[in-house]
Amino acid sequence: MSEKLNNEDQKSKYHKIRMERKKAQIDAAIASATQKKGLLLVITGNGKGKSTSGFGMVARALGHGLKVGVCQFIKSRTDTGEEAFFKTHPKCEWHVLGDGFTWDTQDRAGDIATSERGWAIATQMLQDPSFDLVVLDELTYLLSYEYLDKDTVLNTISHRPDMQHVVVTGRSAIAELRDMADTVSDIKDEKHAFTSGIQAQPGFDF
Amino acid sequence: MSEKLNNEDQKSKYHKIRMERKKAQIDAAIASATQKKGLLLVITGNGKGKSTSGFGMVARALGHGLKVGVCQFIKSRTDTGEEAFFKTHPKCEWHVLGDGFTWDTQDRAGDIATSERGWAIATQMLQDPSFDLVVLDELTYLLSYEYLDKDTVLNTISHRPDMQHVVVTGRSAIAELRDMADTVSDIKDEKHAFTSGIQAQPGFDF
Repeated sequence: MSEKLNNEDQKSKYHKIRMERKKAQIDAAIASATQKKGLLLVITGNGKGKSTSGFGMVARALGHGLKVGVCQFIKSRTDTGEEAFFKTHPKCEWHVLGDGFTWDTQDRAGDIATSERGWAIATQMLQDPSFDLVVLDELTYLLSYEYLDKDTVLNTISHRPDMQHVVVTGRSAIAELRDMADTVSDIKDEKHAFTSGIQAQPGFDF
Repeated sequence: MSEKLNNEDQKSKYHKIRMERKKAQIDAAIASATQKKGLLLVITGNGKGKSTSGFGMVARALGHGLKVGVCQFIKSRTDTGEEAFFKTHPKCEWHVLGDGFTWDTQDRAGDIATSERGWAIATQMLQDPSFDLVVLDELTYLLSYEYLDKDTVLNTISHRPDMQHVVVTGRSAIAELRDMADTVSDIKDEKHAFTSGIQAQPGFDF
């Protein structure tokens, strides 16, 4: 018992020393981070959590009273929990702009036409300073499949209003988009329930 | 011009062949994924998007009419957009259960007591089948710092109601938690705005 206490006392002592040092480092980093601007966040990789992370950003921004626009590319289903939840919010504009996954449509020319129609809506948001956050869900595929002109997309994103945040999600983000981004998160699929025979379930997967 | 068309025609043709093959593979995977159960999703790694991904799951689940519980460990701030947004929702129970970051409290014994009080609330949710989704935000630290007894936590999670989904977020998830999980996403920080001198901003970072 006394040995355990001593052990715990020691842990507490060294914990405090470590944490004092860590706090000094973090305080210095916070002090030097003084710039404010609209940020471009790219969430890519093959793991679960890219789109949901974008939707979490939507909730966070709406919670601060900000105005949000969401463009869902690729997807055509309109029975998702996220759409049901957000689309009636007065400060959230939600668009489902896809025809389904590329392997369902199997129609490159059709996918290109759909992508261009969707991009026109995204462009309006990216030119409208009243939107504080614009989420371009699964945009990466439209670039990696060359459904949209890369220069047009990158130019429009980089010339958006100064304080507008943009979140782009999807696998295989192209290098130019990663380069342009302020923050890039790469979600690695360490393990996935679907490959162990678990069905996609409402509220968890869509 | 005709060369460009031919090129585009060829792309379309091979696109269709590739997508037919891909669809067959994906359809087979969907057909063999027949099991339904409550899943454990662990979102870890040092990149941005772990907590927001959990909050996106909350939105998705609420959109399907499910009941959700959220326990935010570590964090003590109650000015976050996510809390403001979700806490008034009738089907969402939201608890902020921390005293601040370990380097702010610098008090191991106090952090342990706080963790245990918070865990008691999480335990109630994990024993209550009326919760369809429970998000344990930043729980990983309470395990990696040994603030909570590992066996108690893992046992409680594994004995939860059959259809209850659980999302655990935070850096450095311990191996036993990864082993137990159905899905593990590891978010790699490829680039982070904070390290380029950008301030944490409302609606984006909290």
